[in-house]
Amino acid sequence: MTTLSPLRTAAGAAGIAPVINPRVLSLDDSQCSQAVLTLAAQLAATAVQRDQQGGSAQAEKQLFRQSGLLHLSIPRKFGGQSSRWPEIYRITRYLAAVDSSLAHLFAFHHLQLATIQLFGSEQQQKHWLTHTIERDWFWGNATNGRDTGLQLVREEDHYLLLGSKSFCSGALGADALVVSAPVEFGSQERVFLALPASRDGLLIDDDWDGFGQRQTDSGTVHFEGVYVDPGDLLEQGLGTPRATLRTCVSQMVLVQIYLGNAAGALSAAVDYIHERARSWPGSTAEKPTNDALIQLRLGQLWSRFDAASALAERAAERLQQLLDRPQPTPAERGELATWIAEAKLLSGRVALDITSEIFETMGARATSSRFGFDRFWRNVRVHTLHDPLDHKQKDIGRWLLTGEYPPPSNYS
Amino acid sequence: MTTLSPLRTAAGAAGIAPVINPRVLSLDDSQCSQAVLTLAAQLAATAVQRDQQGGSAQAEKQLFRQSGLLHLSIPRKFGGQSSRWPEIYRITRYLAAVDSSLAHLFAFHHLQLATIQLFGSEQQQKHWLTHTIERDWFWGNATNGRDTGLQLVREEDHYLLLGSKSFCSGALGADALVVSAPVEFGSQERVFLALPASRDGLLIDDDWDGFGQRQTDSGTVHFEGVYVDPGDLLEQGLGTPRATLRTCVSQMVLVQIYLGNAAGALSAAVDYIHERARSWPGSTAEKPTNDALIQLRLGQLWSRFDAASALAERAAERLQQLLDRPQPTPAERGELATWIAEAKLLSGRVALDITSEIFETMGARATSSRFGFDRFWRNVRVHTLHDPLDHKQKDIGRWLLTGEYPPPSNYS
Amino acid sequence: MTTLSPLRTAAGAAGIAPVINPRVLSLDDSQCSQAVLTLAAQLAATAVQRDQQGGSAQAEKQLFRQSGLLHLSIPRKFGGQSSRWPEIYRITRYLAAVDSSLAHLFAFHHLQLATIQLFGSEQQQKHWLTHTIERDWFWGNATNGRDTGLQLVREEDHYLLLGSKSFCSGALGADALVVSAPVEFGSQERVFLALPASRDGLLIDDDWDGFGQRQTDSGTVHFEGVYVDPGDLLEQGLGTPRATLRTCVSQMVLVQIYLGNAAGALSAAVDYIHERARSWPGSTAEKPTNDALIQLRLGQLWSRFDAASALAERAAERLQQLLDRPQPTPAERGELATWIAEAKLLSGRVALDITSEIFETMGARATSSRFGFDRFWRNVRVHTLHDPLDHKQKDIGRWLLTGEYPPPSNYS
Amino acid sequence: MTTLSPLRTAAGAAGIAPVINPRVLSLDDSQCSQAVLTLAAQLAATAVQRDQQGGSAQAEKQLFRQSGLLHLSIPRKFGGQSSRWPEIYRITRYLAAVDSSLAHLFAFHHLQLATIQLFGSEQQQKHWLTHTIERDWFWGNATNGRDTGLQLVREEDHYLLLGSKSFCSGALGADALVVSAPVEFGSQERVFLALPASRDGLLIDDDWDGFGQRQTDSGTVHFEGVYVDPGDLLEQGLGTPRATLRTCVSQMVLVQIYLGNAAGALSAAVDYIHERARSWPGSTAEKPTNDALIQLRLGQLWSRFDAASALAERAAERLQQLLDRPQPTPAERGELATWIAEAKLLSGRVALDITSEIFETMGARATSSRFGFDRFWRNVRVHTLHDPLDHKQKDIGRWLLTGEYPPPSNYS
Repeated sequence: MTTLSPLRTAAGAAGIAPVINPRVLSLDDSQCSQAVLTLAAQLAATAVQRDQQGGSAQAEKQLFRQSGLLHLSIPRKFGGQSSRWPEIYRITRYLAAVDSSLAHLFAFHHLQLATIQLFGSEQQQKHWLTHTIERDWFWGNATNGRDTGLQLVREEDHYLLLGSKSFCSGALGADALVVSAPVEFGSQERVFLALPASRDGLLIDDDWDGFGQRQTDSGTVHFEGVYVDPGDLLEQGLGTPRATLRTCVSQMVLVQIYLGNAAGALSAAVDYIHERARSWPGSTAEKPTNDALIQLRLGQLWSRFDAASALAERAAERLQQLLDRPQPTPAERGELATWIAEAKLLSGRVALDITSEIFETMGARATSSRFGFDRFWRNVRVHTLHDPLDHKQKDIGRWLLTGEYPPPSNYS
Repeated sequence: MTTLSPLRTAAGAAGIAPVINPRVLSLDDSQCSQAVLTLAAQLAATAVQRDQQGGSAQAEKQLFRQSGLLHLSIPRKFGGQSSRWPEIYRITRYLAAVDSSLAHLFAFHHLQLATIQLFGSEQQQKHWLTHTIERDWFWGNATNGRDTGLQLVREEDHYLLLGSKSFCSGALGADALVVSAPVEFGSQERVFLALPASRDGLLIDDDWDGFGQRQTDSGTVHFEGVYVDPGDLLEQGLGTPRATLRTCVSQMVLVQIYLGNAAGALSAAVDYIHERARSWPGSTAEKPTNDALIQLRLGQLWSRFDAASALAERAAERLQQLLDRPQPTPAERGELATWIAEAKLLSGRVALDITSEIFETMGARATSSRFGFDRFWRNVRVHTLHDPLDHKQKDIGRWLLTGEYPPPSNYS
Repeated sequence: MTTLSPLRTAAGAAGIAPVINPRVLSLDDSQCSQAVLTLAAQLAATAVQRDQQGGSAQAEKQLFRQSGLLHLSIPRKFGGQSSRWPEIYRITRYLAAVDSSLAHLFAFHHLQLATIQLFGSEQQQKHWLTHTIERDWFWGNATNGRDTGLQLVREEDHYLLLGSKSFCSGALGADALVVSAPVEFGSQERVFLALPASRDGLLIDDDWDGFGQRQTDSGTVHFEGVYVDPGDLLEQGLGTPRATLRTCVSQMVLVQIYLGNAAGALSAAVDYIHERARSWPGSTAEKPTNDALIQLRLGQLWSRFDAASALAERAAERLQQLLDRPQPTPAERGELATWIAEAKLLSGRVALDITSEIFETMGARATSSRFGFDRFWRNVRVHTLHDPLDHKQKDIGRWLLTGEYPPPSNYS
Repeated sequence: MTTLSPLRTAAGAAGIAPVINPRVLSLDDSQCSQAVLTLAAQLAATAVQRDQQGGSAQAEKQLFRQSGLLHLSIPRKFGGQSSRWPEIYRITRYLAAVDSSLAHLFAFHHLQLATIQLFGSEQQQKHWLTHTIERDWFWGNATNGRDTGLQLVREEDHYLLLGSKSFCSGALGADALVVSAPVEFGSQERVFLALPASRDGLLIDDDWDGFGQRQTDSGTVHFEGVYVDPGDLLEQGLGTPRATLRTCVSQMVLVQIYLGNAAGALSAAVDYIHERARSWPGSTAEKPTNDALIQLRLGQLWSRFDAASALAERAAERLQQLLDRPQPTPAERGELATWIAEAKLLSGRVALDITSEIFETMGARATSSRFGFDRFWRNVRVHTLHDPLDHKQKDIGRWLLTGEYPPPSNYS
């Protein structure tokens, strides 16, 4: 298992043809890239059809289990790959260019593993991460920060989970879940805990019906008195700056989904223009690839995409550096949060523009449902509302004006 | 039958509650408005569901037949309402805010009636328009200007139509069709002709699968040697500046579809914010209706919408003036074409922005498929590709630089 | 004295060549237009040089006095022209395309005359307006709404003005002034009063040093115990909705200044491209007038300019209608204020973009100071800060969301 | 002499207070940074005044000579600092935030030294670079690529320069010049040559009158038969890919000027808002530093600035890598050119927006000429026209569509 090269420098892995135009996005020739390219090709074969169907993609989740890519973020000492987050993010981005829903589930699986590493004791980490390797677990979550409908109720020597959580990406069909709930006695702070999805009283409602990110299995999880052992609680890092990096890991996942969809859209447009588009009467060139207006539009979109990608890479590297330290300082954490906010803002905005404007370079026939090119915009539009971009923008401006960093929260 | 008031001034018709927020779009209290409001309410009841299903909306086309609104553009002398185009366009816009596909079919029905009036002899007009009244006909078209797959072949004393036309909005389920085809002998110019849809050899393929405007019945029409009598040819105005106004009538229909979808999206957002949205932590106000960021975004979108609407109204009035003259001058026709290009460019662009950005004012839960709010963007995205906005923009710039008007064509 | 034609329809007055490209802006052939065109040509001859010098343009103010255009807004019964505001605004816009500072002084002169008509008794109107005709007065103002440094102090049988007002456009060199000051006893409301500029104790400081609108004479006026007779107070309409139209008249002046500068910049660019610009290597055409990229940029700028102009015309017409009524209702006044806000927002923003982007169509050599093309941006940048456009934008959004109109104030 | 830290990480050098807000731009604590900060403070003291005066800043060029910063790019073996270009660019950017004209002259001085290193023999390099150190030379140029008015005419055993070059930044008051001219016999390729400015027949016209970048001494140089020894010709690298890197070095200078002005404007705005701005009635906060609208605007501008800076840093690093190789491949050179085009496009566009929009965060009083805040926009507006940004944008789009790199030229 090795690192990915910097984007755009590699020619694509040998053996399997990349499904994304390599000028737009590429991986290096490592073993891991082979796995990613293979998986991407498998997902691409049915992505348009599955987007139309919606529902759960359990067969494709099985492909992830087989790919070995679910072990990337697990330390070598527990049998994983000890991959760095910048690499995991690049893989997420690549997969999102093909299948944004499953790329999200893949990255959120690793987010739950990171949660265990940030908040779990050494023993807890060993337990859950070893299990994950041995049983090829795919993790989901029930941690929606704005939903207060779930309570952790203390009984004699254990706890019960009572209530529900909405928008639980990856919950349906997951093998295990990270759950967050407020500790009843005293502290307002929520605590994370890990559970096998098979535990009694845990019911997952397939009620996700977003018009994008359709196969993220983001339904409501109902907890009808689910038993929680005190040992299930992940309380190690609570209240430390390092623990607040969980939100950073999570927010950076969103960035990759935006960039991935943008890349998927750009790749689709470039290929379509070569293969199918024809010049409009009065164009500056006979072939649309030479059309000044099309070049002009793509030049602007690409530059913004590339710049947002550069901010995303910068933030990912810094995030990894801070994760590698025992404790980042509040200022280091604050600067990182600002960098992530910038990456997220520009990635989200350019992804919205790219996924809508590519059609102007392709023409009317590209709107046929059989191409499924509208799914890029629908995915980005849904995902960029996770938490408001405008508030990120305001946070950045406040920092510039006052030096005040975005306060650590579930969203920054 | 009376005129509609200027937009935004009326309180909505008595009797039936408007389905569109009256600050966004309103009609006056005339009899016609009652019919429009009633029809809009009927369409609204199933619009989201029908958008998801796609396919043909024959039941809803029947509602149009019953409404009397299919007779608006027919002169009083033939039993119609002699409505002015600015009024027909406002009705189109209103209906498009609810159901963009059927609004398009409604307006294209009137475009075919206009074609008969522009190119037909007095006798032909009487024939087809009287039929339309008496039999409650809904007209479709087979006039796609870029598709050269249809030939009008001269036989002894008649013609045969051989080949096919793609993207024939409204053809499926139409009672009659206006068809365009090149006259084989000599002239490159295409000629229009009118046909009952029941004529032998005319087959309509239900192959429209655009991701927006899903119920426009825009399939391919196959002509397997369809008989055409010389008297079916509409050749009266051929080659005159007045005849070139047909494209103006047609382009202005597109403008209404853009504005209608934008209005539908704005109306949905305003109502949703009042009824369902909640403020994000850190907002400037507890209620989202008082949120400075939401107000700021809507203020910008509304201003651009209102400005585009003003250009659309200006162009519609001028178009009617030129239609009312025996022959407009080339300069008058050219100025009108520039005005339409401006209206179309700004309407299209603001509609794309509105239908995407409204979600930032509503938040994540507004992406549930049960609201169907994404259909506004999908409709606009598909429809704005009919002919490229960038080329309109270039035409306008060329006029400003050189005084050269957009040359009359199928698209300008 | 007759009305101006709708913009863009006339060929330019006979006799004198228009200094503004008639595709961008034009006047009809009335006597008034001749006067405007003549004055515009006179101002154009020295506008660049005077912009560089700054300071006061007393000689040019004399040209205004000679033109007769200072009498436009005065009723016929007092010897004036009874011109409608839409016409005065179009003249302002035209002059602003050439000389934005003096166009501002011209329009603000008429704003002061409107103030006298809105707040003065019949006798006061007769007095001041007749004087204005007979002595060819040019009015200035000392009414800055945010400056609270001036007090109207009651003495036995008269008042004294004590303090100062900053940013008093047109004060320097004015023949008479409209002043606003709070009435000391009780009411917080400010009152307007009219004064000859020669009155004792009135000192005008030439301290205006804005980087744009350089010859607006917008210095500070010091009042060192200036005598005010009770008969100088204009108190007639105080507190009525009609009186609040003064702000509407004033805000609409700003709109014309924005549009005028934008038109000046567009006209300069069109002419420059024809006369001096050369194509860049790799352009789509040998002549820059055929360059697709230049056409594309101008097409976008023109469309937005034309749309903003349409909103400005709509608001001007409605303003005149409301001025013509004894009392507008609060709702009518509120709707007008929203329309003005929209016109101002879009005019301001497009004027900023036009005055900056025209350079991309002209190339590097157009930045020579001898052309003075940067003055358009400097004028617009200074003037659009009079009161913040962002707050207008927020006001519009609030209205759309809640139906609440911008409250009447010194700025809305 | 050491490297600068990554931007934004350092607190500013000890000893001298930075004139630019350190959140916007900062240098590390090296000896070089002390020199830069000192020079920046010296330039800042008179920058506004000198911008208004225009003309030549010979006294300030003397400050550069004294600072030692003119030796940065000279190899250690010739007595210089062997500084890397990323560092020189950061210094250029910092100085441009204060005084954009002199920052340009500073960077173009180093561009001429790079030209000598790219095209000169070892002996020529030693000669000119040693001279530069010993005599504290400030280099100018006469290399305008679009001006064909200069000829290098072969005589018996020498050459004569006949004609003129326009827009020769830094020529006036330079100690030496790099000149480009076509070699008369055969080849169309231009050749560079180095000359002391004192050589007979060389006359510099002080005819630069741009409205921005006012003190760049960019006048016309007249060559009235200037003697050129064959040994003055710099012909070593002619025709190699490495030699084409000169344009890359040059284009990257422009990028720094854009970013520097943007940073100067942002710094000015942040400081002004703290010190002088007051909230507008109806703002979301009493203090403008807490105003949501101001934060929102700055957040957007900063994010784009930071992203453009990231692209600029990436391109600078790669440029240095390619300079460090004996010969880059055409593909490496091509990729670099694309990266530079992206950096230039986004830097130029965001700098235009920042230098115009900052005023919306400061308010009307910030337009006083005594602050000189408009110089940022004027500088950027003039400098971004050096070669058209639109053509860069088109080049980028063409690469994305076809893989074709911008061909090496005087501008790419």
